[in-house]
Amino acid sequence: MTDSPIPKTIAVLGGTGREGKGLAYRWAKAGYRVLIGSRLEDRAKAAALELLTLLNSKAFVEGTNNLKAATAADIVVLTVPYAAHRETLVLVKDALQGKLLVDVTVPLVSPKVTKVQMPSAGSAAQEAREILGDDAQIAAAFQNISYAHLMSNEPVECDVLVTGTGKEARAETLKLVEAAGLTGWDAGPIENSVVVEGMTSVLIHINKQYGTSRAGIKITGTNNRQS
Amino acid sequence: MTDSPIPKTIAVLGGTGREGKGLAYRWAKAGYRVLIGSRLEDRAKAAALELLTLLNSKAFVEGTNNLKAATAADIVVLTVPYAAHRETLVLVKDALQGKLLVDVTVPLVSPKVTKVQMPSAGSAAQEAREILGDDAQIAAAFQNISYAHLMSNEPVECDVLVTGTGKEARAETLKLVEAAGLTGWDAGPIENSVVVEGMTSVLIHINKQYGTSRAGIKITGTNNRQS
Repeated sequence: MTDSPIPKTIAVLGGTGREGKGLAYRWAKAGYRVLIGSRLEDRAKAAALELLTLLNSKAFVEGTNNLKAATAADIVVLTVPYAAHRETLVLVKDALQGKLLVDVTVPLVSPKVTKVQMPSAGSAAQEAREILGDDAQIAAAFQNISYAHLMSNEPVECDVLVTGTGKEARAETLKLVEAAGLTGWDAGPIENSVVVEGMTSVLIHINKQYGTSRAGIKITGTNNRQS
Repeated sequence: MTDSPIPKTIAVLGGTGREGKGLAYRWAKAGYRVLIGSRLEDRAKAAALELLTLLNSKAFVEGTNNLKAATAADIVVLTVPYAAHRETLVLVKDALQGKLLVDVTVPLVSPKVTKVQMPSAGSAAQEAREILGDDAQIAAAFQNISYAHLMSNEPVECDVLVTGTGKEARAETLKLVEAAGLTGWDAGPIENSVVVEGMTSVLIHINKQYGTSRAGIKITGTNNRQS
């Protein structure tokens, strides 16, 4: 849960996709108010209804369009496909003023999704900073978690590396990681996002090479989680 | 060990450094013929003597200069600091014809070693390909292994992600990983090296944040190691 008596509101833009819906499910279950955003309001409402049904209506989930969701939220999580990354950020830019953006986008380039191919900014998260400006609070996280893990209640065997424009953005995002039942690590400045976004291509390659669909990563060698 | 009756010869360029010496130790112990290369032949001979002493002379280790080591070897492993990466590759370029190069270099930029800062080629391994040409067989590996782990005989809690210009280069390097007593994974094309090289900065950041010196990564979610 959040650390304030009033639960924070998280907008999950692109929340009708599998990754976004999985994260929305976990946060709604943890007690956050969740707004599912989509280009199409009807699809967002349908996804919200699906999650409410799964959670026996013991949660706050609403569906609306991406702009309204971003405007009404405290924290905005971006889970759109990379092809819609720029246009969605441009759409919600003004609504993000003073809010934390958590970018989940992985810039996969079909058909070679097993090969790391970053945009010229260096990574999707750095591209978001170019679009939003240097004052924006941006973190990047959850890029390596398979959607299949999120909708199940099994423990997830994949850690979450959190990069961001500042320590506060990363710390706030680490709370969301924990609320989702996952293990997170402060992985450093926004420039380190290339490692985490690119790791998704590496994991897809490992899945193909070793005949699985569940490859993930774990940080080893440290038990001390205080920062 | 190697798969041929005659042990292969591995040159470890920059093998007087801690990382290179640790790898040389493990390969010599596994039965490979190891040539320690250095800019200064005397330092290479001293390092070779040190390893032979540790191994009770039950191994083949010789010290020489980088060019002679590369010329005499079947496989060449590059463990120089990034500042000497380009000049060493230019020096041994002709000696590498038809041989596998395993690049261990991490392009850390002081003082911000916790921030990923790749060269314009995309990574040190891709820079090696630019220098050596498109026909070169190059793999990149071992960038995330702490030297402190290599000289001890304890199990190493860090996997090795192997990228490379082709499947054969990666497969040959995975044999070296296994011979060193480590767990390796085929992590895809040479373009994916940015993830593995950059992970070193992420792990240094995690070490600082969480008060350890032994952070590493493990691949999870797959038990099937056949490729």
